[in-house]
Amino acid sequence: MKKLSLLAASAALIALPTLGLAQETAEAAEPATDFAFVLNTLLFLIGGFLVMWMAAGFAMLEAGLVRSKNVAMQLTKNVALFSIAAIMYWLIGYSIMYPGDSWAIPGYLGNLFSPYAINGDPDLDTGYSVASDFFFQLMFCATTASIVSGTLAERIKLWPFLIFVVVLTGIIYPIEASWQWGGGWLSEAGFNDFAGSTLVHAAGGWAALAGALILGPRIGKYKENRTIPMPGSNLALATLGTFILWLGWFGFNGGSELALGANGSANNVSIIFANTNMAAAAGAVTALILTQVLYKKPDLTMVLNGALAGLVSITAGPLDPTMFGALWIGAIGGVIVVFTVPMLDKLKIDDVVGAIPVHLLAGIWGTLAVPFYTEGATFGAQLLGIIAVGIFVFVVSGVVWFILKAIMGIRVSEEDEINGLDMAELGMEAYPEFSKG
Amino acid sequence: MKKLSLLAASAALIALPTLGLAQETAEAAEPATDFAFVLNTLLFLIGGFLVMWMAAGFAMLEAGLVRSKNVAMQLTKNVALFSIAAIMYWLIGYSIMYPGDSWAIPGYLGNLFSPYAINGDPDLDTGYSVASDFFFQLMFCATTASIVSGTLAERIKLWPFLIFVVVLTGIIYPIEASWQWGGGWLSEAGFNDFAGSTLVHAAGGWAALAGALILGPRIGKYKENRTIPMPGSNLALATLGTFILWLGWFGFNGGSELALGANGSANNVSIIFANTNMAAAAGAVTALILTQVLYKKPDLTMVLNGALAGLVSITAGPLDPTMFGALWIGAIGGVIVVFTVPMLDKLKIDDVVGAIPVHLLAGIWGTLAVPFYTEGATFGAQLLGIIAVGIFVFVVSGVVWFILKAIMGIRVSEEDEINGLDMAELGMEAYPEFSKG
Amino acid sequence: MKKLSLLAASAALIALPTLGLAQETAEAAEPATDFAFVLNTLLFLIGGFLVMWMAAGFAMLEAGLVRSKNVAMQLTKNVALFSIAAIMYWLIGYSIMYPGDSWAIPGYLGNLFSPYAINGDPDLDTGYSVASDFFFQLMFCATTASIVSGTLAERIKLWPFLIFVVVLTGIIYPIEASWQWGGGWLSEAGFNDFAGSTLVHAAGGWAALAGALILGPRIGKYKENRTIPMPGSNLALATLGTFILWLGWFGFNGGSELALGANGSANNVSIIFANTNMAAAAGAVTALILTQVLYKKPDLTMVLNGALAGLVSITAGPLDPTMFGALWIGAIGGVIVVFTVPMLDKLKIDDVVGAIPVHLLAGIWGTLAVPFYTEGATFGAQLLGIIAVGIFVFVVSGVVWFILKAIMGIRVSEEDEINGLDMAELGMEAYPEFSKG
Repeated sequence: MKKLSLLAASAALIALPTLGLAQETAEAAEPATDFAFVLNTLLFLIGGFLVMWMAAGFAMLEAGLVRSKNVAMQLTKNVALFSIAAIMYWLIGYSIMYPGDSWAIPGYLGNLFSPYAINGDPDLDTGYSVASDFFFQLMFCATTASIVSGTLAERIKLWPFLIFVVVLTGIIYPIEASWQWGGGWLSEAGFNDFAGSTLVHAAGGWAALAGALILGPRIGKYKENRTIPMPGSNLALATLGTFILWLGWFGFNGGSELALGANGSANNVSIIFANTNMAAAAGAVTALILTQVLYKKPDLTMVLNGALAGLVSITAGPLDPTMFGALWIGAIGGVIVVFTVPMLDKLKIDDVVGAIPVHLLAGIWGTLAVPFYTEGATFGAQLLGIIAVGIFVFVVSGVVWFILKAIMGIRVSEEDEINGLDMAELGMEAYPEFSKG
Repeated sequence: MKKLSLLAASAALIALPTLGLAQETAEAAEPATDFAFVLNTLLFLIGGFLVMWMAAGFAMLEAGLVRSKNVAMQLTKNVALFSIAAIMYWLIGYSIMYPGDSWAIPGYLGNLFSPYAINGDPDLDTGYSVASDFFFQLMFCATTASIVSGTLAERIKLWPFLIFVVVLTGIIYPIEASWQWGGGWLSEAGFNDFAGSTLVHAAGGWAALAGALILGPRIGKYKENRTIPMPGSNLALATLGTFILWLGWFGFNGGSELALGANGSANNVSIIFANTNMAAAAGAVTALILTQVLYKKPDLTMVLNGALAGLVSITAGPLDPTMFGALWIGAIGGVIVVFTVPMLDKLKIDDVVGAIPVHLLAGIWGTLAVPFYTEGATFGAQLLGIIAVGIFVFVVSGVVWFILKAIMGIRVSEEDEINGLDMAELGMEAYPEFSKG
Repeated sequence: MKKLSLLAASAALIALPTLGLAQETAEAAEPATDFAFVLNTLLFLIGGFLVMWMAAGFAMLEAGLVRSKNVAMQLTKNVALFSIAAIMYWLIGYSIMYPGDSWAIPGYLGNLFSPYAINGDPDLDTGYSVASDFFFQLMFCATTASIVSGTLAERIKLWPFLIFVVVLTGIIYPIEASWQWGGGWLSEAGFNDFAGSTLVHAAGGWAALAGALILGPRIGKYKENRTIPMPGSNLALATLGTFILWLGWFGFNGGSELALGANGSANNVSIIFANTNMAAAAGAVTALILTQVLYKKPDLTMVLNGALAGLVSITAGPLDPTMFGALWIGAIGGVIVVFTVPMLDKLKIDDVVGAIPVHLLAGIWGTLAVPFYTEGATFGAQLLGIIAVGIFVFVVSGVVWFILKAIMGIRVSEEDEINGLDMAELGMEAYPEFSKG
């Protein structure tokens, strides 16, 4: 269901036999066991739990990169946003994203309200359990929201942030993703985004950027023209989070093959795993070497973000590149991170964890890199998708942030920010016994 | 083998074709490849490693919720209890739980001593590798013990606790679980517990409750009628532990379908994944909103326990509810946690991590909720199972705790408790360099 | 491809039907779906992502066992070494290790330079996707490097260490592993090492030992004849790392069955999972009891290393032992750790995390234990393999360390070591806010 256009356009060779098998079986009235149905479903389940695990990765990464006075709040936001995404995507998101024949505005706006029902008999026409697809797709929706929480950390109020998550996961993400993966206008226009460099990562980045601009930087972050470092409180957690994300990404990209029940698809998933790993490694090594060369000291947080940028970069097209292709695409992701993190600071855009360089900028890069290896992909169509999704998500997110700011305020008080969100908003500390240096 | 009654009663449509295939193949003397055998086995392996991972989840959750002076001991207990469970379940547990035709007392007491042998040829009559089933079932036994360690943290002695684990994992759990999953009297009585809300979670909770009553609260926890907060030392770890448990639960509930080698079972596993995730999300969101409303501040530990309570609640019947069903069943789990954690404190029952509300009370709730969606399940039979397992585990655990108390003492000295178990019992600290605030 | 000899020698019964099926399908010109091809590939993918996760386990274990002033550097090394392994194994390692018919020196030295190409059509003759095999085998190469970083922590310079990793993962490991798993001379000699007790763990241990001898102990570690304890800064992380490794080991050993697409292989993977878990449990319990008996206090780090030593011990032969066999083989691993950790200190070999006892000594033990259960394995052949791999890795590693020492120095300055590598080499701290006790 995801990436209908892609299936139709470039992966038909692989998908058709699978679907064919499923239909034959259905016709043959022997529903007991269909190899492709079971294996495709299993891919969604494994891919889904790996991407679910990325929620923990974001939580650890962000908890490690904020100061200790804001850690408990960052953790709360991460658990809450994942939970909200789970509910909203069921309630309205999934039917907006995959309207089938029930578009409200064909190609642009899906089926507006139809909470997703899971407990039916297996639908053999799909070639996989629809419940497994729901489970898998939900995790992508949640990932989009996870990206936002890191950028806005340490100063945004809990409840306005969570209301934004409601809108993002219930409406914004499903609409723009439907344009491509639901068979909407972008997929007709020849856009290619295999696992979501634009639809998930850049989208999350645009929503974060809109929020960061409206929210403003943390108190004390920029003094005159200097950027004051505010080091993360726990780099072990941040590294753990990165490894979790790296692991989860095999599900993110590999599961987006959408099929495992044929030799060709199993081979494709394998290629995707290998390429995904290579891009991450290349991003990390590039950031390591670059920070050594530029600053004479390697920078662990840059290395972590380099790996993540490598992963985001390969996500738009993890199947077609050679391993050398994955290497250089991921390496450029690492370069982007090292150069754009300080650039954002120059612009006084305060992105606490570096999510905008990693997810938005490397996401754009990854989307633009697709035509180098994927037959039929064009830079024009890629740019169209990047711009369309960018404008839509940035503008709608900006409007939502503005409304929230007007109605209830989105920023904690100066006093609360200085004392830390944990005591101010939660009344508890993440590390109550470790005294502050 | 697990949930024989369930298979016979309500899931026959799915299970029979699978078993049929396995038998046909066996008869046909073409043993090379049997689709259902391999896929069912794979489900047990994936489910098993996911549930094994829950041991790490409990360790992190508990290490994060105790004070730093007791962290190393809590970690030691968690590694040790998992290891002991692995040995005891092999030595006597598995044959007690699944006696087949070798009950010592039919329906009530299994095959008393028969260390489990794994290295035979594949037994095609079962429809899966018996070694994979052993691996999977072992993890449920270990989970039961993990539940106990959190409640009794910060004051119980290491060795008496571990001796209790020997009895719990070798005898108590296997006996009560055999009543249902081994084909014993409860399964005959129409009890329904798909993945163990009662048989695993409430059972662990009852054992913990018996221990907590006999052990008494921590020094200084209750002064006159006030409860003194003793905040956990590392909420990042506690959150990580919760995410690990959430992830592992897909294996816990999904693997309990016991089959993946047919369209119907693959579809069922998918439904279970989606429902399990929804219940967790609903429990978390409910606890978030409730603590905001009740206390004007959300409470991260309540949110985490809310998610876990949602998971426990859906565990007795994760297949049959609609997603809306999973939502409200999980949400009530969250309500239970928010209201019963303070209630236990009123009763001066000191449950360090909230395991009794999460596992015992939400476990009872989840078991009672089964008849709302599962055809053939009755409140009477559910109550019977809850009460029978409750009395058995609580009484036997209580006797064991009493004997341990009489023979060797179960509580550390007052001085040791105040100084922390880490230095007193282990002579090492979890965080030796982080000075205490 | 891995363990060609093993497949040919002892597992032919299982492997042959699988390969047979694959070939039949290929011949029959019906390439759409081949059960064994897809399932074998899936085993490599699942096994591969589980072993990839071990990289996070090593990172957390080591970060937890070094002092806080060196944590960020230890994390950097772990992310970097995994990334370098990913690149080097692709660039030259894989073709050296699996030369097929293109040996430079037949049986001894593989195909010297042939970056691995992944994106071809599925090759049905192999019985699995070659890309999935690459992904899986890469993770073993990276594991070898992970072992080294722990031993040399807290005093080795970043860049010389990473250059060593380049050589280890690109050349040293692939060469010695090709002797057995690439079909080289050791496999002809009747050596047995199912998943790498010698080829991975002991090899990593030998490389670490060579480095430790040349690098020397940390300042202040040995005063006269006393060993000064330098406790790890975060035992919660160390425990998490151990659980991650335990989980990942199911992929390490289970995936090394190399096939899942037949009843026999599915059964074998299940047996391996059960045995692997038992050996870990036995190692942990043994270390727990032994440290209680010897020192009157259990020792958490010994328990963790005991579990890991149990895992290493069973790795050379996880399929053939009974569960009781796995128990005593793993338990002896635990004994080895408890007795040899202090012995290394007596020899003033400073192994920060205990990697030499765990990976080298338990690896040798595990390799020697194979003939107790595996038909056809002989102590002579096992010794031959242990000695050959040991001499090769130790000597070549020693030469590389010496060259690095001569050219650029491998040890930080005394001042940097005392101040901690984090500030000296990275200019950042892992826990900047937690003041030191």
